[in-house]
Formats: sequence, structure tokens, C-alpha cells
Amino acid sequence: MTGCAGPGRGRAAAGDEEPSGPGPGTVGDRERLARAALTRVLEPGDERGGRWLSRLGPVELMRRLTARDGSAEELSGMTARRLDGYRLRAGAVQPERDLAAVAAVGGRLVCPGDREWPSQLDDLGDARPIGLWVRGRPDLRLWALRSVAVVGARACTPYGAHMAASLGAGLAELGWVVVSGAAFGVDGAAHRGALAAGGATMAVLACGVDVAYPPGHAELIGRVAEQGLVIGELPPSDHPTRSRFILRNRVIAALTRGTVVVEAEYRSGSLATARSAQRLGRFTMGVPGPATSGLSAGVHELLRGEGVLVTDASEVAELVGDIGELAPVRRGPVLPRDLLDAVCARVLDALPARGPARARDIARTAGTGADETLGRLYELHSLGFVERDGDGWRLTPRPTSDGELRRGGT
Amino acid sequence: MTGCAGPGRGRAAAGDEEPSGPGPGTVGDRERLARAALTRVLEPGDERGGRWLSRLGPVELMRRLTARDGSAEELSGMTARRLDGYRLRAGAVQPERDLAAVAAVGGRLVCPGDREWPSQLDDLGDARPIGLWVRGRPDLRLWALRSVAVVGARACTPYGAHMAASLGAGLAELGWVVVSGAAFGVDGAAHRGALAAGGATMAVLACGVDVAYPPGHAELIGRVAEQGLVIGELPPSDHPTRSRFILRNRVIAALTRGTVVVEAEYRSGSLATARSAQRLGRFTMGVPGPATSGLSAGVHELLRGEGVLVTDASEVAELVGDIGELAPVRRGPVLPRDLLDAVCARVLDALPARGPARARDIARTAGTGADETLGRLYELHSLGFVERDGDGWRLTPRPTSDGELRRGGT
Repeated sequence: MTGCAGPGRGRAAAGDEEPSGPGPGTVGDRERLARAALTRVLEPGDERGGRWLSRLGPVELMRRLTARDGSAEELSGMTARRLDGYRLRAGAVQPERDLAAVAAVGGRLVCPGDREWPSQLDDLGDARPIGLWVRGRPDLRLWALRSVAVVGARACTPYGAHMAASLGAGLAELGWVVVSGAAFGVDGAAHRGALAAGGATMAVLACGVDVAYPPGHAELIGRVAEQGLVIGELPPSDHPTRSRFILRNRVIAALTRGTVVVEAEYRSGSLATARSAQRLGRFTMGVPGPATSGLSAGVHELLRGEGVLVTDASEVAELVGDIGELAPVRRGPVLPRDLLDAVCARVLDALPARGPARARDIARTAGTGADETLGRLYELHSLGFVERDGDGWRLTPRPTSDGELRRGGT
Repeated sequence: MTGCAGPGRGRAAAGDEEPSGPGPGTVGDRERLARAALTRVLEPGDERGGRWLSRLGPVELMRRLTARDGSAEELSGMTARRLDGYRLRAGAVQPERDLAAVAAVGGRLVCPGDREWPSQLDDLGDARPIGLWVRGRPDLRLWALRSVAVVGARACTPYGAHMAASLGAGLAELGWVVVSGAAFGVDGAAHRGALAAGGATMAVLACGVDVAYPPGHAELIGRVAEQGLVIGELPPSDHPTRSRFILRNRVIAALTRGTVVVEAEYRSGSLATARSAQRLGRFTMGVPGPATSGLSAGVHELLRGEGVLVTDASEVAELVGDIGELAPVRRGPVLPRDLLDAVCARVLDALPARGPARARDIARTAGTGADETLGRLYELHSLGFVERDGDGWRLTPRPTSDGELRRGGT
């Protein structure tokens, strides 16, 4: 549970013996506890709560919601009954227990202000998540930098499942992190495609990251947590609701560079994700299907608007990768090599000077675990040190001062 | 073989006892004969020939190509051998016979300068057809004003054939003339769909309009000539070649308001038509299919560029109809009613003041033949007098001077 960028990447769980002040790029214990508590009080996407949060900060907001001194009543824009609802929830929180429960399944709460926080979520404004509960080894921020969402119908056709799996595998092979919602149908096929290609995938849940929903995907969600990341706004053990599914979609849209919709009926949740992505200035893409298929009608509607038609992973990568913001890949690392943490540096050192190597050979050379190594390779990829080469990985060729290309992290 | 616009619509065939000077909107006998001859000398789309034609006019160009006075040698940009090729053809022409042969199958040669000439073909510049051989009753110019091309693969899938037929029928029902190339596959299905809906369709051939190519479509081409229009640049009895097919596509593109591609592989002729349409500023549309289908790959390539995704006829009509140039439909007739010829006026009079009527009932009231009536209804539609209403036709509601809507051609 560490990441490439070495110093100051604390992810203090309650009870950690962290020094009194937080390190750089890390929020303090009190704030993390308050945010953990607030994820149980405020529903995802509660913009009124978001406005209080940015005005008062999480610690003061929690204090008011639990105080009996009349300060809660000063929170604007609420009926007494609605306020009672918040207070009822606030009175029952046990954030230390939640943080411990998530730590027990290898998780953590990533907060705005943490170095691991994906700052593109700030585009959501007052609807920004209070924090993200995260299971899995890789660094959320680095993975999100090179991620694409693949979403679509639960009741997809075999064609939709095939396209989702093929995009998942193809994007993973091109070094992209495949983000989806772990649902049946297109979501599951996209995750499985990425996993089958030995690639990176991230599931954004509408429930606690320790809850397997849908239950039929328990094994899949477990594998994603092992090899990738499982994240969500809801505290441990919390369950999905209809509105939580819908609001989960805005996180998928905001987190990724673009959203690909594979089969969607009119007015489906996947289209909601795509429209969120559009509003946020992300790329919106759709996979065409027969004009006679109701399951492609929503996608076609999208493609008649702003959406870009894509038929394979390379077309997706071409679109989302063709942007200056992806500078790490094109311009070389954003971090000097000596800022990498010890494990990342070992993995990087394990790559041969020339030509590709397989992840398991790199793991053997580095003396790191297979999943750990893969996670670090994707982080190093985000940072521009390495790239995919067929089945394996190689050092990124880098321009030297005299314009020649050299290999690897100097 | 007449049209709605009454006076001056002569289509003089050789041997007609036309008065010495042509009427307004009609080219003279000498020019028509010369253009008829030139369709046998110059290949379709010959831009060098087109430049000579606009510099010298058809009569002088034919004179030079058949003269032995050295004036042919002054035609610029030609080797002696190439000139011999032109001369050989020019020496063998029999334009009177060609005009008579086409007249014998109910046809005519429509030339630039004729009122029936579709002036949008002038967008082709030096590659503009020398003239168009036309079989069928309706007025080419009026039909072309409200026409859409539906083209695609010869070896289409059942899905492609279904979509082509459905677009053909749907566009015809919405009052559009369906233009295609009479080939197997998508073309044939589009024509048949329009015919089955009792609608208007036009075939643009890459051979003489009296040649049924492909032979397996002889009956279909015959039906199109009966109920609609069969047109082409090649003189009677001339046969198609590979380059003639390709050059035929530019006529389809230029003649219509837009081109819909239904199934096309990479680098197919249908894509060439679509690209011509794009260059000419026409609408370019494509029907999506499975991303796994090679027969949709060309369409998807188009849709990733300038092409607009369409899934049914109403989406096509919405796009191509949404333009000020279609003023006749939106602003009312372009011709005063008293300029209509007698048959058109009779058909118009046969429509009820309120509500729709079927074409066969209109024919009975007007005392005109069924095909003739249908042709005139489409002409009246182009002129803004009538519109489709379900299975039937009705008078177009028209704004009065005080802004109220009234029905029909006043």
C-alpha cells in the first residue's frame, strides 16, 4: 500500500502512529476522520453538503452536525426535518471503525489534499466526493491519469460483451487503465478483458469497497482489488441504491480521460456517464452497432451529437492520448528518478537497458511480488518511465540534450 | 414526357420539327446534336474535354475534332496519339441515331441550358456532364431538387439490404426522391424500397440508359424507368467500364442533397461517392453497423470524419431538409400556379381542399395515368404545392398575407 512517489505519501488510517502534523501532501488525522465520518452522513453528490464543506472544512462541519449549541441551525438552506436527517446520521458515525474495516481489506481513504488524490475530481465542484475509499495497491492518482472508462448496458448482447472485452484487453495492452462499474454485462466484460491481458483495471462501486455488488461479481471484484483498484464514495458495508448508481457515474466520468459507451438504450445510466463526461470536457466515445438494435440506439444518439465513433482500442487511445496533458508519456517523466520510492526504483532498475521484459521476469529481478510489480509498472508508465511492448514492458526512449534518443529513466 | 413547368420545355430530339430558334430554357438543335455526339467522344469526367467545351462550345469543338484543317491540333494539352483517339471516335458518331434510339425508349438528352438541367451539376466544374441521357416521365431538375442518394456495397449483408430498403421506403414516404446506381446489393434494395412505398426513385447508370446493367436488374431498371427516372452520361447502347462506374459516382453525389452510405468496405466505390459529396458540400451520412463487420468498416471510417450517423429515414430527412435552399417546401411554390402545364394543373386540381388523398384516387379524378400522376405529384412536391401525408398526398398549408395558414396552391 505505497506508491512510486516516495516521501510524504502517508495514508494515515485511524490509529496510525503518525507524528502530530501531517507530512507534505497528506491530510491530518482529524481531517481524515472527519471526512470518513462525512461519507456516512452526506450522500454522494450532495451539493449543499459540498458547499458547507468548502466553507467550513470537514472538522468544523462534523462538529456542527453533532453539536447541540445551535450552530447546526446556522447551516443555510435546510428545513428542520432535513437537518434532523443529517444529525441522526452524524450522531451514529464511527469513523475509526470504518477506517479500520477498510484497512483490514487492504484499503484506505484518499482525501482531497492527499498526494494520491486525483485532482481531476475537483472539476466536479460542490459535487466533488468527500473522499474516496480505495482498495488495492496502485496509486490512484497515477492510475487515473492514464485511464479510460468503458461502460454500457447490463443486459448487453454477445456483440456488446465481445466489444467490451476486446476494448478492455486492447486498452490495457496499450498501457491504459480500464475503468468501469463492475456491473453485469459491458462493465464486467471490460474489467475481465483488461485482467485477461494482464493489464490494469479499476472498478468504481456505488457501495462500500468491501461489499461485492452485484454478488455474482464477488470473484471479479476480488480479482480487481488484487490486481488493480476498487474505489467508491460509500463507507465500508454501505449498500448501493438507485441514486447512488447514478451518482457513481459522475465519478467514473470525472476520473477518466474519456468514456466509451458500448451498447446503451435511450436514457440509460451509461448515457448519463457519457453526458457527465461531456459536461466535464472529457472525451465521449461510442461503439456503433446495428441501427436495428435497441441496445445501440442510445450509443447512436450519442454519436449523432458530440460523441466520437470508435471501433477498437487503438482509435480510443489515439483520441484520448492526443493531448498535451498527457505530457508524461510524450515529454518524459514528471518526477526525477531520485524521488521514486524504493520499490518503484527497484522495479525500474529491473528493466533491461534494451528491449522488453515480461512483468514476471521484472518481478523476479526486482524481488517484488507479481501484482505489486504490475501496479508499479503502471505507475511508472503514468510517470513516463516505461511503456508497454507487446506482452512486456520496456524503458521509454527519451530525448537527450543533443536530441538523440536514449532508453530509460536517467 | 413533359413536366410541370409548362412553356418552353422543349426537349428537341433530332428530327423534331421544332421551329428554327429554341424556346426559352431550351438549347438549339445544333447544340443538342453536338452534345449528343460528344457524349460518345469524351469519357465521363474528362476535364480536358470540359475545358475545351467551355472555351469553344460543343458545336465548334465537334467541328474541330472532325476537321482536317489543322484546327484540332490547336487544342491544347494533347499528344498527337491522344488526339487521334478523340478523332477516331468523333469520326464515327451518329448523334441523330442516338437521339432517336433514346426517344424510342421514352428518353431524351437533357443539356446545360435546358430548363430541365439540374444546375447543381455545374458544381462539377470542368467535369460537368456534357449532357444527361434521361428515361422516364418526371422532370429531372425538379426531382433532383429533393433527392437523396442511398448507396453501398454490392455484396451487402442481409442487414445492409434491410437498412437500404427501409431507408428507400422511408425517404420516399417523406417525399424524397431516392437516387442510387441500380447495382446489386444496397443500390437495388434502396430502389426497391422506394418503389414498394409507391415513391420516387432515380437510377444513375454507368452505361447507356437503354442498357440494363447488371443484366440481373433488367426488370428493376425497367420499373424505375416506368415509375421514375433512369439517367446516365453514356450514349445509348454504350457499356459500363470500371472507370465509368467510378465517374458515375460524382454525378450521384452532385445531383443529390446528400449521400447515405449503407455498408461499405474500405476504399469502396460508395465511399468515393461519399467523398465526392463532401467535396461538393453535400451532406454525407452513414448507417452504422457492428464494429466487427468488414462491410461496415468503410462507413465507420466516414463517420469518424465528416459523415453524420443516421439510423432511419427521418434522421436523413431532418439533416438534408434543414436548409434554406429547400425554400420551395418551406416558403411555398417557386412557380406561380398559372405557369404549371395542363397535366400538372389537373393533378393539382384533383387534390381535395382538406385532408389527404391517395395517388390512385387523384389519378382517377384528374383523368391521368397512375405513373404519370405520381411523377407529377413529386414535381408538385418539389415546387411546394403538395406534401406527403401517410400513404397519400395533400395540399401544402400556405401562409396567407395575414399570417394564417391556408391549404393549397393559390
